[in-house]
Amino acid sequence: MAGNIFGQLFRISTFGESHGVAVGVVIDGCPAGVEIDVSQIQIDLSRRRPGQSSIVTQRKEADQVSIQSGVFEGKTTGTPISLVIMNEDQKSRDYDHIKDKFRPSHADYTYHEKYGIRDYRGGGRSSARETVARVASGAVAKSLLSKYGISIHAYVSQVGSLRLTKDISELGFDHIEENIVRCPDPELAEQMISLIKEVRKDGDTIGGRITCICSGIPVGLGEPVFDKLHADLGKAMLSINAVKGFEYGSGFGAISMRGSAHNDIFEKENEQVKTSTNFSGGIQGGISNGMPINFNVAFKPVATLMKDQDSLNTAGEDVKVTGKGRHDPCVVPRAVPIVEAMAALVLADHLLRSRVNKL
Amino acid sequence: MAGNIFGQLFRISTFGESHGVAVGVVIDGCPAGVEIDVSQIQIDLSRRRPGQSSIVTQRKEADQVSIQSGVFEGKTTGTPISLVIMNEDQKSRDYDHIKDKFRPSHADYTYHEKYGIRDYRGGGRSSARETVARVASGAVAKSLLSKYGISIHAYVSQVGSLRLTKDISELGFDHIEENIVRCPDPELAEQMISLIKEVRKDGDTIGGRITCICSGIPVGLGEPVFDKLHADLGKAMLSINAVKGFEYGSGFGAISMRGSAHNDIFEKENEQVKTSTNFSGGIQGGISNGMPINFNVAFKPVATLMKDQDSLNTAGEDVKVTGKGRHDPCVVPRAVPIVEAMAALVLADHLLRSRVNKL
Amino acid sequence: MAGNIFGQLFRISTFGESHGVAVGVVIDGCPAGVEIDVSQIQIDLSRRRPGQSSIVTQRKEADQVSIQSGVFEGKTTGTPISLVIMNEDQKSRDYDHIKDKFRPSHADYTYHEKYGIRDYRGGGRSSARETVARVASGAVAKSLLSKYGISIHAYVSQVGSLRLTKDISELGFDHIEENIVRCPDPELAEQMISLIKEVRKDGDTIGGRITCICSGIPVGLGEPVFDKLHADLGKAMLSINAVKGFEYGSGFGAISMRGSAHNDIFEKENEQVKTSTNFSGGIQGGISNGMPINFNVAFKPVATLMKDQDSLNTAGEDVKVTGKGRHDPCVVPRAVPIVEAMAALVLADHLLRSRVNKL
Amino acid sequence: MAGNIFGQLFRISTFGESHGVAVGVVIDGCPAGVEIDVSQIQIDLSRRRPGQSSIVTQRKEADQVSIQSGVFEGKTTGTPISLVIMNEDQKSRDYDHIKDKFRPSHADYTYHEKYGIRDYRGGGRSSARETVARVASGAVAKSLLSKYGISIHAYVSQVGSLRLTKDISELGFDHIEENIVRCPDPELAEQMISLIKEVRKDGDTIGGRITCICSGIPVGLGEPVFDKLHADLGKAMLSINAVKGFEYGSGFGAISMRGSAHNDIFEKENEQVKTSTNFSGGIQGGISNGMPINFNVAFKPVATLMKDQDSLNTAGEDVKVTGKGRHDPCVVPRAVPIVEAMAALVLADHLLRSRVNKL
Repeated sequence: MAGNIFGQLFRISTFGESHGVAVGVVIDGCPAGVEIDVSQIQIDLSRRRPGQSSIVTQRKEADQVSIQSGVFEGKTTGTPISLVIMNEDQKSRDYDHIKDKFRPSHADYTYHEKYGIRDYRGGGRSSARETVARVASGAVAKSLLSKYGISIHAYVSQVGSLRLTKDISELGFDHIEENIVRCPDPELAEQMISLIKEVRKDGDTIGGRITCICSGIPVGLGEPVFDKLHADLGKAMLSINAVKGFEYGSGFGAISMRGSAHNDIFEKENEQVKTSTNFSGGIQGGISNGMPINFNVAFKPVATLMKDQDSLNTAGEDVKVTGKGRHDPCVVPRAVPIVEAMAALVLADHLLRSRVNKL
Repeated sequence: MAGNIFGQLFRISTFGESHGVAVGVVIDGCPAGVEIDVSQIQIDLSRRRPGQSSIVTQRKEADQVSIQSGVFEGKTTGTPISLVIMNEDQKSRDYDHIKDKFRPSHADYTYHEKYGIRDYRGGGRSSARETVARVASGAVAKSLLSKYGISIHAYVSQVGSLRLTKDISELGFDHIEENIVRCPDPELAEQMISLIKEVRKDGDTIGGRITCICSGIPVGLGEPVFDKLHADLGKAMLSINAVKGFEYGSGFGAISMRGSAHNDIFEKENEQVKTSTNFSGGIQGGISNGMPINFNVAFKPVATLMKDQDSLNTAGEDVKVTGKGRHDPCVVPRAVPIVEAMAALVLADHLLRSRVNKL
Repeated sequence: MAGNIFGQLFRISTFGESHGVAVGVVIDGCPAGVEIDVSQIQIDLSRRRPGQSSIVTQRKEADQVSIQSGVFEGKTTGTPISLVIMNEDQKSRDYDHIKDKFRPSHADYTYHEKYGIRDYRGGGRSSARETVARVASGAVAKSLLSKYGISIHAYVSQVGSLRLTKDISELGFDHIEENIVRCPDPELAEQMISLIKEVRKDGDTIGGRITCICSGIPVGLGEPVFDKLHADLGKAMLSINAVKGFEYGSGFGAISMRGSAHNDIFEKENEQVKTSTNFSGGIQGGISNGMPINFNVAFKPVATLMKDQDSLNTAGEDVKVTGKGRHDPCVVPRAVPIVEAMAALVLADHLLRSRVNKL
Repeated sequence: MAGNIFGQLFRISTFGESHGVAVGVVIDGCPAGVEIDVSQIQIDLSRRRPGQSSIVTQRKEADQVSIQSGVFEGKTTGTPISLVIMNEDQKSRDYDHIKDKFRPSHADYTYHEKYGIRDYRGGGRSSARETVARVASGAVAKSLLSKYGISIHAYVSQVGSLRLTKDISELGFDHIEENIVRCPDPELAEQMISLIKEVRKDGDTIGGRITCICSGIPVGLGEPVFDKLHADLGKAMLSINAVKGFEYGSGFGAISMRGSAHNDIFEKENEQVKTSTNFSGGIQGGISNGMPINFNVAFKPVATLMKDQDSLNTAGEDVKVTGKGRHDPCVVPRAVPIVEAMAALVLADHLLRSRVNKL
């Protein structure tokens, strides 16, 4: 109820503040028999890690994960898997100056009002540091999904007004991790990197968009009515820090389309049911139809600027919030593995849920 | 788990197929002491009702709700409230011709594969008829919210390429229910109505967009991390039939903005904390900040066309799906009360959840 | 959260007051493909029905169930199953005299304080009439379980001090339904019936005990730690009106036993793992071991007496509560199908839950 | 769903195996503003700790708890509280001899069958070591409850046939912690201690009973129908290792009572509603009535004996399980704080739940 638990059958419970002792997650409901390789989890954590490139925050966190339970001789045992990442590079004093101030478009004011007390250091629980727990547990979900042939690829498809127009089916997924912005189009990636650097030089930040493709999805994931597969994916994405919008398949573009153009016609290919187009985004009536699932996630520009801003303090007085600390000028390069992790958690959950539909 | 239950503390459990005996909902968790007026529920049901105007389906359903429990002498007692709407105008034979066919971009194929059995009449459980239960329970949620000064107004802000550009603060909410398309701009409304009629004449359908404004929201609704207020609103909207996208505040527009333009500056007005702009959409860090909550919902064009389409049947053979029956050429006019109902259910739930944050 | 929903994957949501319009239940999560026969549900409802014999309340309720959704052509479709029983023989005026009085050892006082408002007629929601919804949904659960060879038999094993001492394995289940008290020992049954009649003549009531045996249980039902199979069975039984205690296997008798006598030794019989004794009651570490599950449920004497009693009213004044109405002198004969229903609901839930333990 | 999460609003998620890296718990839903004192948690952990006296297991575990999140400047912040206890005295080699054997009346066989893989060292997840997490989180729940004047006292009321007959109201709670068996009657305590030592000398074990009294309970805790307060208390107790039965108020004794003797008559004392007797055990209709809550919990004799026993191995062959290791001859002295912890978790949960009953 308090918002730190996600999933129904593959369920995670996360904890930890930005400048507390540790951040971590307990996974309850991972089936027994899944091979778990710490180094595999570490790969995704490294994709999310601060300091990984010149266009992200220069904080240094090793983000070493340790497994405290639930894995025996390299395999899950069906019992809770506890994953912990100790906090290291905490310059908590960096935050003394905002102790009583509400940073614009952050969660300072709302947490203060909601709880009457808050750990102001680095945003405490509202910090995107919390997503390290999502990525770690998402890596476990990916291990489970890979057993069923399901794979997930996210990439940056827009930074500011620089928008990917080429089709991913031409570009392929191979180039994504070859550049620091994680855009599958190498040329556009260069432009995005330049834009982010320019924005940072201004002490400013910029928004972005991530696209995600899930392949190898069996028919039948997703539950009717409220737990439609795309509704759970949407909630998962909207729960990520800085996300402002979610669309799948044709998305907002569907508004100006006619049904005759939008309907995906069923056809058979090698004895498999397919659709000729995929405006449905792989989901019909909330349930996967076997076509790839695709969706877009909109991220706002990071709220922490290297500029002074007007604001209020806890006493309601006018104050200046000065730009300080080490922050991302654009969140999307590091958010790519977070989007994948949340998609993996939703798909793992629905994969298990789909086991109880029939006699 | 099976997807027919929504909410945590204000929880609804819906049931019913399009052509079954009845559609209904059990509300568990409505606090005791809320006045319930059947005629008030009926008003919202009438706004959703088929046959209400010349631009919607001409099916005739009285959609009379009856209360079976949980209300005593006009007030809720804290026990489950059961609301039932009997099905009436069921021309089930209209569906015999699609018994074994998969209609394009419907849920026929996915339900068939998921369950191995399905009530094909009118789409069964996947029919938008199910939303009658959402509207009925949403009206109860609205009664609860009104006790706390919270109000919700949704309206059509786009049909096809016809997009509302005027600001709602100028237009006001009064005109919304004055026209059959539910657009607050009377002139644009006329154009939208013409477009929908034209599309229908073609045997085709068209998409649309609904905007929703929630006012009078106290600070502190929404839970950190996974149950952020906008994440739950997003899931609620994405669970509505035909929805393809959700955005709140600046939404997808945030992608191309810079932080210095996007940040909402805190200021004091009559001893109340406000923000000068509202790109946050009334929610910061997933928690309401007291400003109005606003969001957009994208609807695809209705999948049922009055045209023949190619498809497959359950045996995997090529078939023609012929256009038949009485359907909406555009879903948004009738979806306005559904959007409001889902918003009300989310807000009522989080209103109750916010009672346990502090000592 | 408000207590009217039970189960995780096989989940029921019940509603209805004793003297309201109807009592009912929505089942969410019953797998598709289970044959549902209304007459089968009706059989269990008849075993619970008032007026069925000379030793139970003489209220007359037909308790006819109607299926409103979720069943198509005789089989479940995987969508919610709504079952409704209309209330009929409501002599609400019988309750005017206790409108403002707190009946001793009833829920009048606690409901009044908790909600500030209550439907006093027949106890409203706190009435055992609510269990009709449990029995109806339990019958659906039994249909599911029978597909897997699981059967459930409950019987009266004690009324007052009259205690069944013969072993059920000798008596068999066949005699249970042959007498109106539902005791498998015909002779003891006669004594119990006499005792109940005698107690009723005194305007008094008496307690009792029900024993339940679940056979054909596969190994592996139940989840470690909190959702141990016997913990969920215990909660289910304790949630039944008038229940004061629950024990399984050796139960309270285990307190005075030594481990060397209590341990159940594993052995093989026809290539099947068995235990030589069954003090474990078919459950070890919270998980079924394949042996029959057995447990006892203690019921208090019914609180409604045909005698005057001292009490308080809502104003805190001393009043007399007079004995009136039609009530059971002993609850156990009619509670047998309720115990079975709750056991069936727990087992159906855990049967589904056990599908997601392994890869 | 996988059984390691408990509670609805005050929710705990536990993890850890007996011989793994650590055992711990994440509390989600503790309100902000509760003072947390590690030394207070440590006191309860010490009461549960192995090696605390001559009648319990001689394993040495410091059981030092560390707080990883959710507490800032000595108070809870409303975010998840992670508590971790590292495992220390793990003589895992002690378990090599039972790697492939099923110990009688343990969870070895059922875990093996359920998951296909298990951490056999010390029982893995099925070990009572898991209860250290319950006690740690229960101490946090107690801190919350103490703010509302609620206190919980458990004590040993029976070991073998030695049964406490004196009334606790005469004995008081002060003597409980004065003797190593935790019985409030000092004389009986001595006899119990002698019995346990004698049993241990035989290489055997013995059962016991714990009684728990909860005082200062406000009227209105507990939810109707399925989540009755005693049903949730019952589930909580039955989920503790080795528990075979639960009864509250009159319990199994109610079976042979008449209603005229069993009904608790309401009366007023100093303007407060009381009952003259308390056969209801402080709960009526599933909801607390303000009187003390009392219940009994039956524990079986520990299954690990210092004697050889016949059994089967994973290959289905006859084997001897030899008595080895350091174990408790009787579980109740160390289970007293576990019973209290589970009661505290249930009451904290229902305390929060009771905040949403009324407008």
